Amino acid sequence: MKFELRNPKGTRDYLPEEQYTRNQIKRILVDIFEKHGYLPLETPILNYYEVLASKYGGGAEILQEVYRLTDQGDRNLALRYDLTVPFAKTVGMNADLRLPFKRYEVGKVFRDGPVKAGRNREFTQCDVDIVGVKSVIAEAELMAMALAAFESLGLNVYISYNNRKLLSGIITQSEIKEQDINQVILSLDKIEKIGAKGVYQELLTFGIADVTIDRLLSTLELAMDNPLEYFKNISGNAFLSAGIKELEQLNCYLTGLNLMGKVKLNPCLARGLDIYTGTVYEVFLTNGSITSSLAAGGRYDNIIGGFLNNGSIYPAAGISFGLDVIQAALALSATEQYRSPIDLLIIPIGTELESLQLAQELRGNGCAVAVEMTGRKLKKALNYADKMKIPYTVILGEEELKLQSVKLKDMFNSTEQVISINALKKLDLKA
Amino acid sequence: MKFELRNPKGTRDYLPEEQYTRNQIKRILVDIFEKHGYLPLETPILNYYEVLASKYGGGAEILQEVYRLTDQGDRNLALRYDLTVPFAKTVGMNADLRLPFKRYEVGKVFRDGPVKAGRNREFTQCDVDIVGVKSVIAEAELMAMALAAFESLGLNVYISYNNRKLLSGIITQSEIKEQDINQVILSLDKIEKIGAKGVYQELLTFGIADVTIDRLLSTLELAMDNPLEYFKNISGNAFLSAGIKELEQLNCYLTGLNLMGKVKLNPCLARGLDIYTGTVYEVFLTNGSITSSLAAGGRYDNIIGGFLNNGSIYPAAGISFGLDVIQAALALSATEQYRSPIDLLIIPIGTELESLQLAQELRGNGCAVAVEMTGRKLKKALNYADKMKIPYTVILGEEELKLQSVKLKDMFNSTEQVISINALKKLDLKA
Repeated sequence: MKFELRNPKGTRDYLPEEQYTRNQIKRILVDIFEKHGYLPLETPILNYYEVLASKYGGGAEILQEVYRLTDQGDRNLALRYDLTVPFAKTVGMNADLRLPFKRYEVGKVFRDGPVKAGRNREFTQCDVDIVGVKSVIAEAELMAMALAAFESLGLNVYISYNNRKLLSGIITQSEIKEQDINQVILSLDKIEKIGAKGVYQELLTFGIADVTIDRLLSTLELAMDNPLEYFKNISGNAFLSAGIKELEQLNCYLTGLNLMGKVKLNPCLARGLDIYTGTVYEVFLTNGSITSSLAAGGRYDNIIGGFLNNGSIYPAAGISFGLDVIQAALALSATEQYRSPIDLLIIPIGTELESLQLAQELRGNGCAVAVEMTGRKLKKALNYADKMKIPYTVILGEEELKLQSVKLKDMFNSTEQVISINALKKLDLKA
Repeated sequence: MKFELRNPKGTRDYLPEEQYTRNQIKRILVDIFEKHGYLPLETPILNYYEVLASKYGGGAEILQEVYRLTDQGDRNLALRYDLTVPFAKTVGMNADLRLPFKRYEVGKVFRDGPVKAGRNREFTQCDVDIVGVKSVIAEAELMAMALAAFESLGLNVYISYNNRKLLSGIITQSEIKEQDINQVILSLDKIEKIGAKGVYQELLTFGIADVTIDRLLSTLELAMDNPLEYFKNISGNAFLSAGIKELEQLNCYLTGLNLMGKVKLNPCLARGLDIYTGTVYEVFLTNGSITSSLAAGGRYDNIIGGFLNNGSIYPAAGISFGLDVIQAALALSATEQYRSPIDLLIIPIGTELESLQLAQELRGNGCAVAVEMTGRKLKKALNYADKMKIPYTVILGEEELKLQSVKLKDMFNSTEQVISINALKKLDLKA
């Protein structure tokens, strides 16, 4: 049988050099999640289609991108397209779960949609959510946690944030017609990218009256410097007041946690139309070298309750970290050249067993050690270590065994030293 | 829309208590893999069906269990059913990969087959493989690594091992007819479970002559005490000699690594019909409380070359760890009661901000700390900590803040102590 070796469109292999970094990112994130009291949950990739397709499962657009399949029992299945619907499903299936339920999940999701740079059909999400807390203290914790995570990752970021109630209030205040509200929200969401002029042009093309647009944009211009103060001092509506109240409480936490220098209120930020009900936030690189957000989320008080439809209310907030974009950001900021996670290659010359023994002992000290096993010539083995970017090699021959000392070669600096095996066991090769 | 909340047959959620253990197992395994010089690889779950269905992709039986689907471009896709075919695919797609290529992959695989206890349709495999090494030193490293892994996991195990060439030699020696060989291998593979009598009965039902069975079983009986010595001293065939030579070399490594007390040569072990060409091994619990193997693998020199069909030879050996069965073994051997990974719950009484601040500081010391956020009554918050098995709580009120000291409650022992906040920051709550 003849077949072509290839990966399906929108999927790819991650070879070790990349995958090691991805695993490091996941480890750092998971460590931070767990320190904040979030517990791991694993849900299946395979789901009943009807569960994923239910009213609160993400809307009609996403259903066009769902991979569907059947099993031997002719069940109507689909691959999950996010981790939020499975989370809601698990909450609904386990009536004995104690609230607040704080969970994280790191896993693959699938969307059969357009493929472009940084956007695959099979990709990994890292989601953190809390269900059962009404207060913005939940968002304060999630925002603080995100900043701590990016600090651990060594990435300089800020958080752009807003409150959907405030945004609704501004729009109501500007007397936008009911049928135009969604378009106004989507355009305003882009104001940092396309500017006020861009928003103006876009809204004109949608047939919104220029006086209406003027009113909206001039209000925003006046408000931009200090939106909270501005809207507090004009006579507002119920949405405005509720949004301001929540933002003030959130700011109080952020100030107390000394994070105000890392966050930026953007009264136009929306993050899509349907899901969010209160605070919304997106994390961006401070230097702007990547314009997509590295993490994003917010409060979605109606989703789980609407999905479960059991009469209960499930206030919830969350944040999702993008593994691919974080990996891209780290690659951009990397100053050091790649170094193999393998610290040392031992090259035996007729000493295979002793090399295995030595490797075993060195691993006990935390080193990652490989033993050359092909029996090829020394030069080829050294070339392998060089190409693999393994920082150290040791050549172990009969003579070295007799003297209990070896030549330790520093492959990056092309230096070598004779060192006793005992001293080698005490060296920190990770340094 | 009305729908039932449930998981498809053969899939399940892993709630935090279980998933935390599963993550710990994965962490321990990955740490050991990396210390042995194996590097991470991630391959897609979605594959072209023709790649998974190719001749060396696992045989006709497994194809009946493949989940198939198509994407928007009408590509003929399937979910991977193991990690070996994707590994071979990656080796074939990347001509610049340097051999030996040592990789591990931990990931989901899917088999639309019968569901029973411990056997799901969506499950996780942890595979370690090395391609490019002909010598049994590779198997010696993999077996030593497996023993080190189970020691780290705190499970008492032994390895049952064999060499497929030896087994073929024994069968050839007993003058089994060509057409009966596969059935004999499958029956012998079960000899430890069903005994020599069971094998005898089974082979009779397949129409094999009783004298032939007698000859085979009496040879094995004589050999059982010391198979290598026995077969060395009878005039054998080429298979026998090759198998003995490889086993002697392997034993030499295992002796030198001081592992002979942990391994047991079983000349009947086969591990399936098609894949393996040399050493085979399975890891079992010493106390036999679970009879399935916890990990298994061997040498498969023809698979990757046959799959890639590019004229090159790819000697390979590997081992696969079963996450579910290891989790079950750990659950059986667990002596301690469950304890939440969250070390401490801080319960604010009008001190939400200060509680967030204190939590932040305690996390800096490595503790996992949650803050009560619902504003519910103290008793309910304490009950939550109790039910969640969080070992410590701290109640932080105005009074405590003023005095800079708190009540630290040990939830397991129902004791409490007043402690200064400074002293609390120095406590090791993980102990």
